[in-house]
Amino acid sequence: MQSTRNVKPPVFNPITGAIRALAMDAVQQANSGHPGAPMGMAEIAEVLWRHHLKHNPANPGWADRDRFVLSNGHGSMLIYALLHLTGYDLPIAELKRFRQLHSKTPGHPEYGYAPGVETTTGPLGQGITNAVGMALAEKVLAADFNRPGHEVVDHHTWVFLGDGCLMEGISHEACSLAGTWGLGKLIAFYDDNNISIDGHVDGWFTDDTPKRFEAYGWQVIRDVQGHDPAAIEAAIQQAKGNTAQPTLICCKTIIGAGAPNKQDSHDVHGAPLGAAEIEAARAHIGWNHPPFEIPAEIYAAWDARAKGAAAEAQWNARFASYRAAHPELAAEFERRMAGDLPADWNAHVEAVLAKVIDKAETIATRKASQNSIEAYAPRLPELLGGSADLAGSNLTLWSGARGVRKNSGGNYVYYGVREFGMAAIANGASLHGGLIPYTATFLMFSEYARNALRMAALMKIRQVFVFTHDSIGLGEDGPTHQPVEQIATLRLIPNMDVWRPCDTTESAVAWACAVERRTGPSSLCFSRQNLPFQARDAAQVAGIRRGGYVLSEAGNGSQTVAAQAVIIATGSEVALAVSAQKTLAGEGIAVRVVSMPSTNVFDRQDDAWKAGVLPKGLPRVAVEAGVTDGWRKYVGLEGEVVGIDRFGESAPAGELFKLFGITAEAVAAAVRKVLA
Amino acid sequence: MQSTRNVKPPVFNPITGAIRALAMDAVQQANSGHPGAPMGMAEIAEVLWRHHLKHNPANPGWADRDRFVLSNGHGSMLIYALLHLTGYDLPIAELKRFRQLHSKTPGHPEYGYAPGVETTTGPLGQGITNAVGMALAEKVLAADFNRPGHEVVDHHTWVFLGDGCLMEGISHEACSLAGTWGLGKLIAFYDDNNISIDGHVDGWFTDDTPKRFEAYGWQVIRDVQGHDPAAIEAAIQQAKGNTAQPTLICCKTIIGAGAPNKQDSHDVHGAPLGAAEIEAARAHIGWNHPPFEIPAEIYAAWDARAKGAAAEAQWNARFASYRAAHPELAAEFERRMAGDLPADWNAHVEAVLAKVIDKAETIATRKASQNSIEAYAPRLPELLGGSADLAGSNLTLWSGARGVRKNSGGNYVYYGVREFGMAAIANGASLHGGLIPYTATFLMFSEYARNALRMAALMKIRQVFVFTHDSIGLGEDGPTHQPVEQIATLRLIPNMDVWRPCDTTESAVAWACAVERRTGPSSLCFSRQNLPFQARDAAQVAGIRRGGYVLSEAGNGSQTVAAQAVIIATGSEVALAVSAQKTLAGEGIAVRVVSMPSTNVFDRQDDAWKAGVLPKGLPRVAVEAGVTDGWRKYVGLEGEVVGIDRFGESAPAGELFKLFGITAEAVAAAVRKVLA
Repeated sequence: MQSTRNVKPPVFNPITGAIRALAMDAVQQANSGHPGAPMGMAEIAEVLWRHHLKHNPANPGWADRDRFVLSNGHGSMLIYALLHLTGYDLPIAELKRFRQLHSKTPGHPEYGYAPGVETTTGPLGQGITNAVGMALAEKVLAADFNRPGHEVVDHHTWVFLGDGCLMEGISHEACSLAGTWGLGKLIAFYDDNNISIDGHVDGWFTDDTPKRFEAYGWQVIRDVQGHDPAAIEAAIQQAKGNTAQPTLICCKTIIGAGAPNKQDSHDVHGAPLGAAEIEAARAHIGWNHPPFEIPAEIYAAWDARAKGAAAEAQWNARFASYRAAHPELAAEFERRMAGDLPADWNAHVEAVLAKVIDKAETIATRKASQNSIEAYAPRLPELLGGSADLAGSNLTLWSGARGVRKNSGGNYVYYGVREFGMAAIANGASLHGGLIPYTATFLMFSEYARNALRMAALMKIRQVFVFTHDSIGLGEDGPTHQPVEQIATLRLIPNMDVWRPCDTTESAVAWACAVERRTGPSSLCFSRQNLPFQARDAAQVAGIRRGGYVLSEAGNGSQTVAAQAVIIATGSEVALAVSAQKTLAGEGIAVRVVSMPSTNVFDRQDDAWKAGVLPKGLPRVAVEAGVTDGWRKYVGLEGEVVGIDRFGESAPAGELFKLFGITAEAVAAAVRKVLA
Repeated sequence: MQSTRNVKPPVFNPITGAIRALAMDAVQQANSGHPGAPMGMAEIAEVLWRHHLKHNPANPGWADRDRFVLSNGHGSMLIYALLHLTGYDLPIAELKRFRQLHSKTPGHPEYGYAPGVETTTGPLGQGITNAVGMALAEKVLAADFNRPGHEVVDHHTWVFLGDGCLMEGISHEACSLAGTWGLGKLIAFYDDNNISIDGHVDGWFTDDTPKRFEAYGWQVIRDVQGHDPAAIEAAIQQAKGNTAQPTLICCKTIIGAGAPNKQDSHDVHGAPLGAAEIEAARAHIGWNHPPFEIPAEIYAAWDARAKGAAAEAQWNARFASYRAAHPELAAEFERRMAGDLPADWNAHVEAVLAKVIDKAETIATRKASQNSIEAYAPRLPELLGGSADLAGSNLTLWSGARGVRKNSGGNYVYYGVREFGMAAIANGASLHGGLIPYTATFLMFSEYARNALRMAALMKIRQVFVFTHDSIGLGEDGPTHQPVEQIATLRLIPNMDVWRPCDTTESAVAWACAVERRTGPSSLCFSRQNLPFQARDAAQVAGIRRGGYVLSEAGNGSQTVAAQAVIIATGSEVALAVSAQKTLAGEGIAVRVVSMPSTNVFDRQDDAWKAGVLPKGLPRVAVEAGVTDGWRKYVGLEGEVVGIDRFGESAPAGELFKLFGITAEAVAAAVRKVLA
């Protein structure tokens, strides 16, 4: 295949040899992993990391560092080798423990494990998409903070990607937007090695990729010899020279280059080379050192610490002069990059809540969400909003929203109909720092973005996912658009906080909690239809932050009586619970109503709180316009769940609630049943 | 905008007027819906449906009809108008009840409601992808059944799609494959109206779409005036003339054309026009009839029944001559198109099972899955297999697998790294008829395909989703690849049957059940690692089909004793349950082990079966290497669940099971706890 593809093989040397040796030795030692990509991209990595990447291994958190994303994350040994060789705090002992429990070198690069890993990659296509988000963040922050003569935000985002990333649909969504936005500091290297796991890609990947990316408005540099440092250098120069367009550098490479018998085949993609081939490769590439031993002069050639420290020092000096000229901007930049909220945030939230409670509006919670954005956003310039072509339905625009355009920054992104791309771009923006992204679509289409939501939770990053039209209350659009199982399935993502507020107050609190949460993403689920305001005392308002609380104690008005049963409800069904409570009170049945806007948050409360809200032994009924199974953890086998275990129908919302039995009468009947 | 886009407006006439009137009147009456697309595509629809579409309104099930897919499904009134006007069993009364409960005209076209709707559309991008699957099915069936002089499979697949479909990532996956496969009978009309919900698309959709599709290997016909019947006719002729490539006809149109004040803006996209604008439109297009009244001569002009009957009669004659020449093939074609299994299927399954039980192999269930395919596939030529670039890991190839190629049919599809596209293409193939698709990826990446799985369940179609590497047992690839919540969330999709077999026998039964299930899809979850064979008597083997059954009764060998507790387990954890049972027996604690390969199937059993398996009052413990919440419906609040409520880690599998406490000891301890 090589000859027909006209790929020039590498001229081996000890600099790239160190990468190849570390990759093949670590994979061999782990007895699993992917040596092919690191060996095939060694020259590209060498030119980029030794001659262009702006970074300081001693400070992986430097605000203006270049971002590097290995979108073909299975080639993780490439980035581990690079981080180790250039001087990051990733000692050789960690490389020896590649893919072992609690090492810093897991099978795929995991954010938060090895320093210098900017995002978790592995699920294909999401790395390039995160990178688009990082480049978008750089563009937005540069517009926010740079001033004439003070370019404090000015860095590149570099991406390595392979055939797999380019086949995934999300690459289409992300790269289309990168072209539209003219992300000139985004430079991607396509590792065009013609191989994926099933073999030579000719049978399933025949795109003219350069032409495709030209159609997106990218600068495309074709037919770069990916093992020729001079060709790579020239391409990088050309890429850097074009600041109006993102650049795709198409590098023809040989997968596993250096393994004389296995290279250029899928045998080298995802399995150890084996002792014999490694020995042959050592001879072939002229690397005579034992596994995990790197000669001092090779370390010296790779060491980026001095150059990195100088680069950061120079930036620090520039930032000092920026601070002198624009002290407030400088302080704000530091606040935002640190991820801290404004000093008066808590007081502001209290003030907003007081107004919301005072207004006592009966509106759709999607509208309450928009009011929350309108109230909070002026104090949170770090909010980067957006919607997947549903701004007017999701209600995510606010009076200060400024759309990001090709020639301008902004604080609102028109993502088009691209849910998965949107979520993963926002993940990248969050990872970049300086921004708190919120994105929006119909709750149903959280499914299109599903794995990006999971990645946000896995990476423990702050992201606010707004999902509107959260039930059959969506009405006429029918079952394709009516969520039934979506809230339940979102709740099952570890570290995802799901909120389903019942009114304006809970909506405002949910938004505040999502913004304040630094250890993971939140999904806010809002209704299409109007929901009545619920009255609460101060303790109850405070209880919202506990995820579940007693909204209405059993009894008649001022007189509290011992409850015989508990109704747990969320969102649009809270009003049904309150109504059922009233009906039952008329029958002499005393029932407590618990509003549980976030089961995830409730589950994290201490036992005393939980037992206080859901006293042991009291029969329980749950009501939610969705699948019922998840509620068994609160009501047990003896309780009742009023819900919907089938797909919806196309009809006006009011008729659907009746059809599916999501009514106050049904809730009351369920209570009578558990008491019978 | 019109002038700059150089779109020629329509020359209005009563033929297209009927479409425009029905669309605007029905949306107005429903007080919701999307008039823009039907009005903007009226001329394209007229030329296609009156002059090219091969169909017989009296028999929507005619095997060799052309398939028509409205990928921009929100424009549902377009297809309802067309079906009504051409003579399908969709009376005007149904159009008057557009978007009303239990009408045949739901908000989006739903498969199984109106005759002639070939697939449910609405979730953008999936319609065009289903259409690629239909065209693939036509290609595969033509190769299987056509013989020289007998082209019994020979029809087109036509698609309407809009900007939204083209922005979605799945359009990239599907259209790339359509080009690779050279689906020459696939013809798509791009409704290029420059509008999406957020407004003029210039801010978020700047792709050079024709260039993009050329990069996929499509024939692209650019700049077709979408309101000019002659231009549309010429484009269709050119499209039909090229049988080596799929064709994209790029039609410049005016959204809502005919509404004089609202057309060409997003105001007309997704809301009723209002009485005043409808009146103005009536005047503008020269339509003077009351709502839902169509003059007889217009009906006559649209009526496709005579032409359709003649076309089908001609095909029937051809099929009769085919039957005379190839009687067995003709019978087989009829069997496959009817979706019936071979007459000896049940006997064959019994024979396969007997062999599997006799072998008693301890192998990975993914290998057991491959053995099942190998055993069943020779009797099931309708199986259309495939994997998203993981054939060697999912183990979906078998000895008779023949890859579909540009110039050949086959029974196995190399989908490349395109999970969502794969699932929705397979949905299309299933809808076409004549094929039972099975597709495969890692269980984790079911998330990329999530909404297509849901659509299969919603449409009640037969599809087999193979998901391997079903837990932390995947090992070193780490948390990005280790399913934790995926099995639980799949179970929550209404009408999805999820199976997680524990050994070779359960794997073979699960495969048989999935193939036999005509009312919905099945997800088969298989292990990467070896699992021990479990011995069963005949009643127990039969019990597998019940979804949950007593695998091992409490007691010592031959002597059964009354169980004090029940352990419920699935997949790789069944062996742990059996081991814990043994340990506990040694302590004098009698425990029953229930294997529950499919909770969904178990839940459908009668009460007697369920109570027999899970006797009331007996304490219960569930064990599964995944999130625990779903098991509360079986163990209640007082039971115990041994599971994993956090993300995984990268390490060898054995270490992970210990780390997360998924061990026989933990199961035994949980039993002791529920008995304490």
